[in-house]
Amino acid sequence: MFVRNQWYVASWDHEIDRQPLARRICGESILLYRRFDRSVVVLHDACPHRLLPLSMGIKEGDNIRCRYHGLLIDSEGRAIEMPIRSERPHKSICVKAYPVVERHRFVWVWIGDADKADAKLIPDFWPCSRSDWTFDGDYYHIQCDYRLVIDNLMDLSHETYTHQGSIGQHEILEAPIQTQTDGNHVTVTRWMAGIDAPPFWRNALKQEGPVDRWQICHFLAPSSVIIDVGVAPVAARATLEHHDQGVRGFVIDALSPESDTSCHYFWGMARNFDVNDVGFTARLKHQQGAVFREDVAVLEAQQRSILVNPDLKLRGFSIDAGGVRARHVIDRMIQAQHAPGGA
Amino acid sequence: MFVRNQWYVASWDHEIDRQPLARRICGESILLYRRFDRSVVVLHDACPHRLLPLSMGIKEGDNIRCRYHGLLIDSEGRAIEMPIRSERPHKSICVKAYPVVERHRFVWVWIGDADKADAKLIPDFWPCSRSDWTFDGDYYHIQCDYRLVIDNLMDLSHETYTHQGSIGQHEILEAPIQTQTDGNHVTVTRWMAGIDAPPFWRNALKQEGPVDRWQICHFLAPSSVIIDVGVAPVAARATLEHHDQGVRGFVIDALSPESDTSCHYFWGMARNFDVNDVGFTARLKHQQGAVFREDVAVLEAQQRSILVNPDLKLRGFSIDAGGVRARHVIDRMIQAQHAPGGA
Amino acid sequence: MFVRNQWYVASWDHEIDRQPLARRICGESILLYRRFDRSVVVLHDACPHRLLPLSMGIKEGDNIRCRYHGLLIDSEGRAIEMPIRSERPHKSICVKAYPVVERHRFVWVWIGDADKADAKLIPDFWPCSRSDWTFDGDYYHIQCDYRLVIDNLMDLSHETYTHQGSIGQHEILEAPIQTQTDGNHVTVTRWMAGIDAPPFWRNALKQEGPVDRWQICHFLAPSSVIIDVGVAPVAARATLEHHDQGVRGFVIDALSPESDTSCHYFWGMARNFDVNDVGFTARLKHQQGAVFREDVAVLEAQQRSILVNPDLKLRGFSIDAGGVRARHVIDRMIQAQHAPGGA
Repeated sequence: MFVRNQWYVASWDHEIDRQPLARRICGESILLYRRFDRSVVVLHDACPHRLLPLSMGIKEGDNIRCRYHGLLIDSEGRAIEMPIRSERPHKSICVKAYPVVERHRFVWVWIGDADKADAKLIPDFWPCSRSDWTFDGDYYHIQCDYRLVIDNLMDLSHETYTHQGSIGQHEILEAPIQTQTDGNHVTVTRWMAGIDAPPFWRNALKQEGPVDRWQICHFLAPSSVIIDVGVAPVAARATLEHHDQGVRGFVIDALSPESDTSCHYFWGMARNFDVNDVGFTARLKHQQGAVFREDVAVLEAQQRSILVNPDLKLRGFSIDAGGVRARHVIDRMIQAQHAPGGA
Repeated sequence: MFVRNQWYVASWDHEIDRQPLARRICGESILLYRRFDRSVVVLHDACPHRLLPLSMGIKEGDNIRCRYHGLLIDSEGRAIEMPIRSERPHKSICVKAYPVVERHRFVWVWIGDADKADAKLIPDFWPCSRSDWTFDGDYYHIQCDYRLVIDNLMDLSHETYTHQGSIGQHEILEAPIQTQTDGNHVTVTRWMAGIDAPPFWRNALKQEGPVDRWQICHFLAPSSVIIDVGVAPVAARATLEHHDQGVRGFVIDALSPESDTSCHYFWGMARNFDVNDVGFTARLKHQQGAVFREDVAVLEAQQRSILVNPDLKLRGFSIDAGGVRARHVIDRMIQAQHAPGGA
Repeated sequence: MFVRNQWYVASWDHEIDRQPLARRICGESILLYRRFDRSVVVLHDACPHRLLPLSMGIKEGDNIRCRYHGLLIDSEGRAIEMPIRSERPHKSICVKAYPVVERHRFVWVWIGDADKADAKLIPDFWPCSRSDWTFDGDYYHIQCDYRLVIDNLMDLSHETYTHQGSIGQHEILEAPIQTQTDGNHVTVTRWMAGIDAPPFWRNALKQEGPVDRWQICHFLAPSSVIIDVGVAPVAARATLEHHDQGVRGFVIDALSPESDTSCHYFWGMARNFDVNDVGFTARLKHQQGAVFREDVAVLEAQQRSILVNPDLKLRGFSIDAGGVRARHVIDRMIQAQHAPGGA
């Protein structure tokens, strides 16, 4: 079960152009393309005539013509030309058009009742859109329940073992965490005061000496995690409330369920340093690919193990507090939509 | 659900020889082979001993011996030798032998109660068997409900878009059609009077000038479509009733369901012109392969879309009248076999 | 359904070393590895924290650390270190440790209630452990119900046809068999008196002349078959009770169900002749591979045929008496464990 009446990332902005892209979000097959004015169209991916995927169709201007019998559909999902051109299409011949907003480099689609769509509900990924920051990332497809990825991201202690060959560090396990819930927003904070910066951050800061380091994971319902990371020299007196004194980044993780056991993962990193260094950006994206393959091996094996052990339950240790609370939020939202009058 | 108590094409005549061929028709696993006298044997493909497919067996004369323990089965399906040769096989040890007729270049098998099999019920594919015509074709396997292929064939307007890279033409969409039902026989007629012949037919006719062109699709229950096609010079005064004045062909399409979502497709073309030109025959078969791949892409995508959209229905537009009526015939036949006393 | 509270072969002794091996036995996912003292550990293959397979973990001495969050599990299945090292693991955090015994070159695991495990119940594969015999073999994985393999082994008459290209012989079909049941032990005896030895056995005996030959198949519940085979010169007066006068071997076949339609097959041959000829041992193992591929083709095709013909039953002929009785034993054991107070 998925949380409905929510915005989900359907794609990166750069994935969509004039030709249709087919994708499945929360079990719904959609196609995406851009109009000449660059605005994005999202339609249900089945011709209202004989259900052939419209994504196989022929683009004609901003419309799309079915590859089978040529029913012409406009970008609002209405049939505007019948296979026999002299016939007039009845207005009931249409496909569902999905509310769509392009923001923060992503294409967001509203899964649920169209009349409830409100762009104000889109999670605030502000670091992805600020002119003094830079942002890029990649798309991955994983064969697991999206909630396993959220668990993974809300508990960075896994880096020590899962990523022991790449980015793992014992310091992360040793630093205490604080977990807070505020409505549907869950935060896991790890503040490491006066430590040696690890190589990545020392290079970013371009100086030696003790630093304060932070990792603040924000779960934004229903399925995003953004992680505020960085270091500042101890002398700069950074605090949990104000820590822009050094180098800072946001790891952006937007998950969109595809099916019960597969999901789309949109990963990126926004940063406020070396913002014009495109080589740095490219290396970051490349290196993340290798780290990510370690996560995928774990996540997909975990999913298979869950399926063959239906009698076993996932346990929550103290390190899992963030993921456990995020799941509580998701469960509560799903229950609410089943309640009388629920969304 | 399939229509039972019917003849289905199990194979082309040239596919069957002394060695067994395994195929599944209407969900039933069968094997086919020829006796020394060339007559065709069709048996259920499971040894009555331990169910090993008999098609893996060892041919001994007209009999087949199971590869596992050597039970010997004759071409009527009776066990005639036990693994221990001194034992006598009980007459209950047998496999189902299917009624089979070789006609019109095809091997027809009766799916249903053997005592109801009557060769007179085989559809009349007369153009495939006349000495002054020639006939050849090919076998294709498609991952879709056989009824989707019937829909496709009873509405040639799809050629415009599905085959826009090959044989598609706008004239076909523009010509009006007439649909008639006579019992279980559905006909879709498209008569294009006084038009320019398309390249294929101009070459066939070997002359320029205006022609009358026809496409007459006949649905023959439960699952064949034969299409009467051709052109005649206007001066020859062809009519719907008599149109042998020019060049004429019959596209033969015999479908046999394999499972709910897969089928066998036996395609061929019979013609009354250039009947001794084997190069023409070979080119026709080769070119059809390319056109057919366009259909398969559409049909298999349509099948997948139907499976993931169980809440959506296929719509019938005016161009679909032939397919809609053919499905009514099929539905009626399936309902009849569930009625008390039904076949 | 599988017979529980039984020892099953989980692996050959040589398959297990310090690094974990993952395998599924009777539907249960396990991992196996050796401690420094060479003793074998068998644990359920799912971390008690988040179910990641422990077989993906990191060995630390005799313990294994989960690759995900680093929970450290000792070789008794107890958590001994939490992801945060300052936390103390509760004793409820553990994985099931399976009783395990290494004997007769195999690693035996107890599937069922651990407190019922008794090493005395392990089938007596004595020829595999005697210093004056030699024993070696191989591991195969088959996509079929393990009982189909038992049927196959309890009826060697299949060699005539399934193995007609390799070891098949008509003499085997012609020799009468005797089938006996003694509790859960089923025996099929084929005594061929005064025959010409086949090539394999003539080479083994290293002399010409008439021999007495035997094949005595023992079904040892729940899923082993050991076959006493060999020849002795007629002059040596071998009897069913005493036949160590010539050359003798035991074909060892231990089956372990993996799922309803797949199994592990541990095959080996013990012999009392040429015991130091390692080339002979290697050739035997190599040749068995080719014979085995003929069996697999039959067994997997039989399994598929059973699945698509749910309305058909396996028949028992006289040659099947051994397999039929072995299945009776298995059925009785499965029924007993469902009875009130049953195991």
